[in-house]
Amino acid sequence: MTFEYRTRRRVEFAETDMAGIAHFSNFFRYMEMAEHEFFRHLGLSVHAEVEGRTVSWPRVRAECEYHAPVRFEEEVQIHLVVRKKGKKSLTYEFRFVKDDGTLAARGSMTTVCTEVDPATGKMRSIAIPEVVARRIEAAPAEAIKT
Amino acid sequence: MTFEYRTRRRVEFAETDMAGIAHFSNFFRYMEMAEHEFFRHLGLSVHAEVEGRTVSWPRVRAECEYHAPVRFEEEVQIHLVVRKKGKKSLTYEFRFVKDDGTLAARGSMTTVCTEVDPATGKMRSIAIPEVVARRIEAAPAEAIKT
Amino acid sequence: MTFEYRTRRRVEFAETDMAGIAHFSNFFRYMEMAEHEFFRHLGLSVHAEVEGRTVSWPRVRAECEYHAPVRFEEEVQIHLVVRKKGKKSLTYEFRFVKDDGTLAARGSMTTVCTEVDPATGKMRSIAIPEVVARRIEAAPAEAIKT
Amino acid sequence: MTFEYRTRRRVEFAETDMAGIAHFSNFFRYMEMAEHEFFRHLGLSVHAEVEGRTVSWPRVRAECEYHAPVRFEEEVQIHLVVRKKGKKSLTYEFRFVKDDGTLAARGSMTTVCTEVDPATGKMRSIAIPEVVARRIEAAPAEAIKT
Repeated sequence: MTFEYRTRRRVEFAETDMAGIAHFSNFFRYMEMAEHEFFRHLGLSVHAEVEGRTVSWPRVRAECEYHAPVRFEEEVQIHLVVRKKGKKSLTYEFRFVKDDGTLAARGSMTTVCTEVDPATGKMRSIAIPEVVARRIEAAPAEAIKT
Repeated sequence: MTFEYRTRRRVEFAETDMAGIAHFSNFFRYMEMAEHEFFRHLGLSVHAEVEGRTVSWPRVRAECEYHAPVRFEEEVQIHLVVRKKGKKSLTYEFRFVKDDGTLAARGSMTTVCTEVDPATGKMRSIAIPEVVARRIEAAPAEAIKT
Repeated sequence: MTFEYRTRRRVEFAETDMAGIAHFSNFFRYMEMAEHEFFRHLGLSVHAEVEGRTVSWPRVRAECEYHAPVRFEEEVQIHLVVRKKGKKSLTYEFRFVKDDGTLAARGSMTTVCTEVDPATGKMRSIAIPEVVARRIEAAPAEAIKT
Repeated sequence: MTFEYRTRRRVEFAETDMAGIAHFSNFFRYMEMAEHEFFRHLGLSVHAEVEGRTVSWPRVRAECEYHAPVRFEEEVQIHLVVRKKGKKSLTYEFRFVKDDGTLAARGSMTTVCTEVDPATGKMRSIAIPEVVARRIEAAPAEAIKT
């Protein structure tokens, strides 16, 4: 059972904007990349056939606070923590920290385990499959820095 | 003095993901597009020389709740409302509504008026310039639907 | 039978890079948007159920030459011309022109009509369906400016 | 003097489209990432103060041929080869190869060494600075696979 994951991400040129910094929308993509690496690290995939069903994890909520700009070629450490594990959903918290210790951003994201009908594309929330649920747990309160 | 703006956005192919829906990160770009159109509508620009200074509006917070997926070629109406006007910041709320009336998403974004040093790229928050402040006002409480 | 289409596109903030101009990769997205508008203008969709099959148009080649940078909030006119209509493929040419007549970029794109197996995602090139083929023709040689 | 560089890239979820594959425009971003890593590998940056001038490398031409789709979480090897070194420009070739040896795509990109006026944003092509030119050379003919 795991409740956290750390990775690193370098800001690419195409992710900067004319203000010279990583465009704010990219932090949501960075959160997602960290989430997907976390799943792979556990031997899982966020978009997979699980027990004969196409399971995906659409977001129901995402949020980010920006504390310091991140520039081209800068690397940030991303720290993912599982804040809450529901029957059908997972809520993550993320911290983006520069190598000098500066907090660049904090975010959170809630995803819902969903079955996608491959023919129609229709989505229906489902209980987190056992193969996923037994690998992920919510962090103890003290693991979440404020 | 204006406190709201409406525009429309069609989901482009490149904005969809393999789940067949607009990728959640794009809603933050849609919010920003609506904000920028709102500024242009008022004869302003979000990145401009104002009174001899390079003024920009970086985000300090952005948030979105997703209620219904939006698919390729679907159009949504985007309704921007100025929730709060501070001395240095603006907070917007956004509603994304489909043509059949379905609420697709709700979001908010807080931006801070910032002076950028063109030589160094350094950023410093400043009071909203008068040319901007006199055109934008916070919405009355009843304009914000819940 | 139609062989050309004109549209306009404004450069969004998220599409600029730290050099202050529209990132070069976005011109490929602009070409695609113009192509998709062209299809919609003809009552078609590039991703559709056609005669009981899921038909899509993946690219086999794309190219762009950049002549002048395009900046935030600038609008360009996009002129799409159908250069070649094969049995299974369409080749487009695109010109991006600023309002002062400056050529910003020229591009081309070849797409292949493809049937996608909805269950497996497997792709197979097919003859352009009649419903599409009867609406699109290759431009006469003189329609293609050099 | 170096004329080639190899790196790897995994397809992120946000880079897929509703056809379930990496959107074609992303291959241009992958080429750019490989180019920038190549520069960093040589102790350089594509956007840098060089000898007191702000030097950047805008593209004048980019092209890609698509041979096989690449899906979510797939990794490709990217092989960059310097095809041509002019007085002011560099032309690269790229091959994207899957782990099973399948050629996914081939591309090329020509960039021009450019001085950017930080005050006005005006761009002017310049000779490649010596610090860059002495580290990069064109590949011998036999290094370029067909």
